[in-house]
Amino acid sequence: MSKIYFDDFEVGQTIELGSCTVTKEEIIEFALKFDPQPFHVNEKEAAETIYGGLIASGWHTGSLFMRLLYDGLLSRAASMGSPGQDEMRWVRPVRPGDTLSARGVIEEKIPSRSKPDRGLVRTTYQVFNQEGLEVMKIRGLGIFAKRPSDDS
Amino acid sequence: MSKIYFDDFEVGQTIELGSCTVTKEEIIEFALKFDPQPFHVNEKEAAETIYGGLIASGWHTGSLFMRLLYDGLLSRAASMGSPGQDEMRWVRPVRPGDTLSARGVIEEKIPSRSKPDRGLVRTTYQVFNQEGLEVMKIRGLGIFAKRPSDDS
Repeated sequence: MSKIYFDDFEVGQTIELGSCTVTKEEIIEFALKFDPQPFHVNEKEAAETIYGGLIASGWHTGSLFMRLLYDGLLSRAASMGSPGQDEMRWVRPVRPGDTLSARGVIEEKIPSRSKPDRGLVRTTYQVFNQEGLEVMKIRGLGIFAKRPSDDS
Repeated sequence: MSKIYFDDFEVGQTIELGSCTVTKEEIIEFALKFDPQPFHVNEKEAAETIYGGLIASGWHTGSLFMRLLYDGLLSRAASMGSPGQDEMRWVRPVRPGDTLSARGVIEEKIPSRSKPDRGLVRTTYQVFNQEGLEVMKIRGLGIFAKRPSDDS
C-alpha cells in the first residue's frame, strides 16, 4: 500500500480510524500520573460526584484518540506533525470497559505558502463509545508532505 | 487554606501553576502507548526529521500541563470537570530534560443558567520551557461549584 500524501486527501472524505477498549486499570493509571481528580482515580469517591462513577480523564480520551489516529491514518501517511487542535469537547463520560471508535471528515486543505513541499489538513474527528454515542469531538490540524515528484 | 470556588476567580487574575521536568524515558514511554510517530519514540529517526531530534507528543505536553493544572489549582478548587478545551497550539517542541512551567489568565466567568450551583470559567493558559519560551498555549474551560451559602 502506497503512502498517503497531502495530495491524496479530499475535502469531504471520511476516514475510519478503528477502535480500542479502555480498562479501569488504564483509566486509574493514566489519571494517577496526569489528572488525579477523585472522579478519575477513586471508584468510591467517583460514585458520589456528578459523574456517578469512575470516568476517564479527558486527556486520556484525547490520547486514546491520538493512538487511533496513528494506527488508522498517520502510520500510513507522510505526517510531519501538528501545530495544534481546536474545539476539543468531552461530550459524554468515558467509563471503564468502554470501546471507543473514531472517524474523521476532511474539512479543508491548505497548501503551505512558505514551504511548497507540504500542506495543512483540517479534519473534524468524532470519537464514539460502543453504543454509538459521541464521547469526544475535536477539530484537528495536521501537516502532511506533498507527494515527491519522483513518486508517482 | 480554604477551597477555591467559582466566586473566587476574578477576570484578569493570573494563576501560576508550578513546574515539572520531562525525561527522555517518559517521552518515549508515553509515545509508545499513545503516539508512536518516529520523532516521538526513536532518537536516530527523530534526528533526521524536521524536528532534528526526539520531541514529546503534543498529547504528552497537554497531559503534563493537566498535571500542573491539577497540582497548582484544581486540587485546591471545587472543580466539577471540564466540557473541553479550545485552540491548543504546540508552539515549540518539548525536548528531553525540558522543565515546563505554566500560567493561566482568567478570561471570562459564566454562571450556569440551568444549574445555579455552578459556573464556567474560561482561562488562557501558557506553558513555557526553562528558557522562558512558550511551548504550548490553550484556552481551557472549567466548571466550578459556587460557594455554598453555609461556607463563608
